[in-house]
Amino acid sequence: MKVLVVNCGSSSLKYQFIETRDSLVLAKGLVERIGLGEVEYSFTHGNLPKTKITIQAKNHTEALKEVLNKLTSKEYGVLESLDEIEAIGHRVVHGGESFYHSALITDEVLKAIEVNCELAPLHNPPNLQGILACEEVLPSKKQVAVFDTAFHQTMPEESYMYALPYEYYQKYKIRRYGFHGTSHRYVAMKAAEFLGKPLESLNLITCHLGNGSSITAIRGGKSIDTSMGFTPLEGVVMGTRSGSLDPATLLYIMEKESLTPKQMSDLLNKKSGILGLSGISNDMREINAAEQGNARAQLTLKVLTHSIRRYIGAYMVELGRVDAIIFTAGIGENDYVVRELCMENMENWGFALDKEKNKQTRGTLTDISLPNSLSRILVVPTNEELMIALETQWVIEGKEK
Amino acid sequence: MKVLVVNCGSSSLKYQFIETRDSLVLAKGLVERIGLGEVEYSFTHGNLPKTKITIQAKNHTEALKEVLNKLTSKEYGVLESLDEIEAIGHRVVHGGESFYHSALITDEVLKAIEVNCELAPLHNPPNLQGILACEEVLPSKKQVAVFDTAFHQTMPEESYMYALPYEYYQKYKIRRYGFHGTSHRYVAMKAAEFLGKPLESLNLITCHLGNGSSITAIRGGKSIDTSMGFTPLEGVVMGTRSGSLDPATLLYIMEKESLTPKQMSDLLNKKSGILGLSGISNDMREINAAEQGNARAQLTLKVLTHSIRRYIGAYMVELGRVDAIIFTAGIGENDYVVRELCMENMENWGFALDKEKNKQTRGTLTDISLPNSLSRILVVPTNEELMIALETQWVIEGKEK
Repeated sequence: MKVLVVNCGSSSLKYQFIETRDSLVLAKGLVERIGLGEVEYSFTHGNLPKTKITIQAKNHTEALKEVLNKLTSKEYGVLESLDEIEAIGHRVVHGGESFYHSALITDEVLKAIEVNCELAPLHNPPNLQGILACEEVLPSKKQVAVFDTAFHQTMPEESYMYALPYEYYQKYKIRRYGFHGTSHRYVAMKAAEFLGKPLESLNLITCHLGNGSSITAIRGGKSIDTSMGFTPLEGVVMGTRSGSLDPATLLYIMEKESLTPKQMSDLLNKKSGILGLSGISNDMREINAAEQGNARAQLTLKVLTHSIRRYIGAYMVELGRVDAIIFTAGIGENDYVVRELCMENMENWGFALDKEKNKQTRGTLTDISLPNSLSRILVVPTNEELMIALETQWVIEGKEK
Repeated sequence: MKVLVVNCGSSSLKYQFIETRDSLVLAKGLVERIGLGEVEYSFTHGNLPKTKITIQAKNHTEALKEVLNKLTSKEYGVLESLDEIEAIGHRVVHGGESFYHSALITDEVLKAIEVNCELAPLHNPPNLQGILACEEVLPSKKQVAVFDTAFHQTMPEESYMYALPYEYYQKYKIRRYGFHGTSHRYVAMKAAEFLGKPLESLNLITCHLGNGSSITAIRGGKSIDTSMGFTPLEGVVMGTRSGSLDPATLLYIMEKESLTPKQMSDLLNKKSGILGLSGISNDMREINAAEQGNARAQLTLKVLTHSIRRYIGAYMVELGRVDAIIFTAGIGENDYVVRELCMENMENWGFALDKEKNKQTRGTLTDISLPNSLSRILVVPTNEELMIALETQWVIEGKEK
């Protein structure tokens, strides 16, 4: 099936046009600064070189029209007519407790996405705008919403409830939701294929380590716990996010520095994590480059991998048995130093890393464990757009339920 | 050595008079409501029945004088004269980064305890008052400060640093400190004795589960990580404390309910945890009693034990190998249901619980693992007062460094 995958931010529209049959990306592009004057549009269609132009687009609808023009144009086109688009798949960040699966877009689904805007005020509104733009411009197409949170809705209550007064769950829906669900699901599926075993038979720990990072415990293909929580702030140390910390530290800093909740949120989301600790960068490549002889860079690497190991251990216990640990996303696929430190001294628990193979692996699906390792350690490149296209197809074909 | 162990709160003075040679408690008592009008004093001296009286005491010094009178009185006395008190050991909550060990009290030590009042504004000031009262009333006695935090000062930086902007560590000393150090150290020592192995050779996970709870990873007798953090709020779910949660939840609630940091701190420290989640009580005995047919009580039990299991797993990975998991304190020593749920489905990791033996064990030093369990699971009653007395003796004898 040929699926247009759409991911809208507040001033951006990202897309891929994918043939799911052979996982082929026929076209992809990004419109930025929508509604902010000079709008930038860069795209790679078919085998053409990457093109950058500026366009006029006051809103997502106008941006979408421009994209569709280019997709069908003589110069940059990859499709004869818009009829070739068989479905549209939208990334939607927050499905709250409403969505356990991807969903065919109906009025009811639109309403539910709107209700969940409260939980993701920066992300759900533009996601919604993208859907409405597509309805306006391509009214005949079937559209599917694919949620970051849906995969984690299988978590048991002991994993998602915080020990806050219960009323805050009832009143504000404060609980763990988890994110990156599309990625965790995709790499779990790929790992099962690679291992030649049914996903239903496997216990996996998936480590999505990018600028945002999360770790998930997956039993038989279902998420049973994940490190991100009510928001993407909780969990392991990230590029600019603190991850978990003593809640009292926030209150202490707020009082000392007279910060509002909004300012404190900025501090924890934008100035902490790898950036805050290292004082160098939010990018592990720069930390690794600075690591020799730089105490703060060394500290950052140690704190980061330590925080990942805490979750790996927690999920080993939750799962009771682990068939494979999977590394994915920017850091997980490419940073062998982080992987090596994460898997250090794990032999007694059944994980023996092939250090040489690990060192040589960058962005390819590879088993980096030693042959005698009781459990596997895998690098599995993620592909969230492909997963959105696949889930879109499955929903339309009635296979997703 | 005969040691007077003193633990002062803002309006209380708790003491035990201990003969360390045979771990004998010769006398113990508690003065409450000091400076609040009618002061209550209850004590058990020698083999006499427990006695409750009211006394006059405007401050800790007057309370101490009253205690010493009773300790040497004809009616309630257990010592001929105050000369029999060979040393005084004080519980001090926060040693900050100043103290790796218990310390003989000098002007310098007093100054350091005062500096650390900033980190424990509710606890260090009364601890300090207790020391000053003893200096005034018993000027010739050697006094030792035993810190809740000192045992955890061996943690490596990857365990104690948060991924906040580094300046907050420099400016405000925000880092993980950990608490309950006296208890974790005591049960580790007792476990080594029980197992007949040198503490230096053992990797242990100690679970101090009381109204306040913390879990510690101990390698060769040294703490390498612990669940409580900058304050005793972080970590596992506790009686009225939330333990760890997504930091963003605090900011969300503060905005929604217009709470100040102080109010939010009260909510997390006094109205959350077992109490907040269950809506029943902060006491696990009442939760267990209500558990049949009460969904919130069942939820609370599951969330509590789940939070403990996360730390056990994290510390398994940090330690690389675990010789024993130890349960102690009110819940850890007495609640077999909590212990059973904590150790469920752990056979693959080398921990096999003897469920029958576990059920029968209450407050006695017992190996509750099956004979074929690769690692041991122990119940070890804690005794913080005895540990304070022992550390006091060791400091005076020059054995603590």
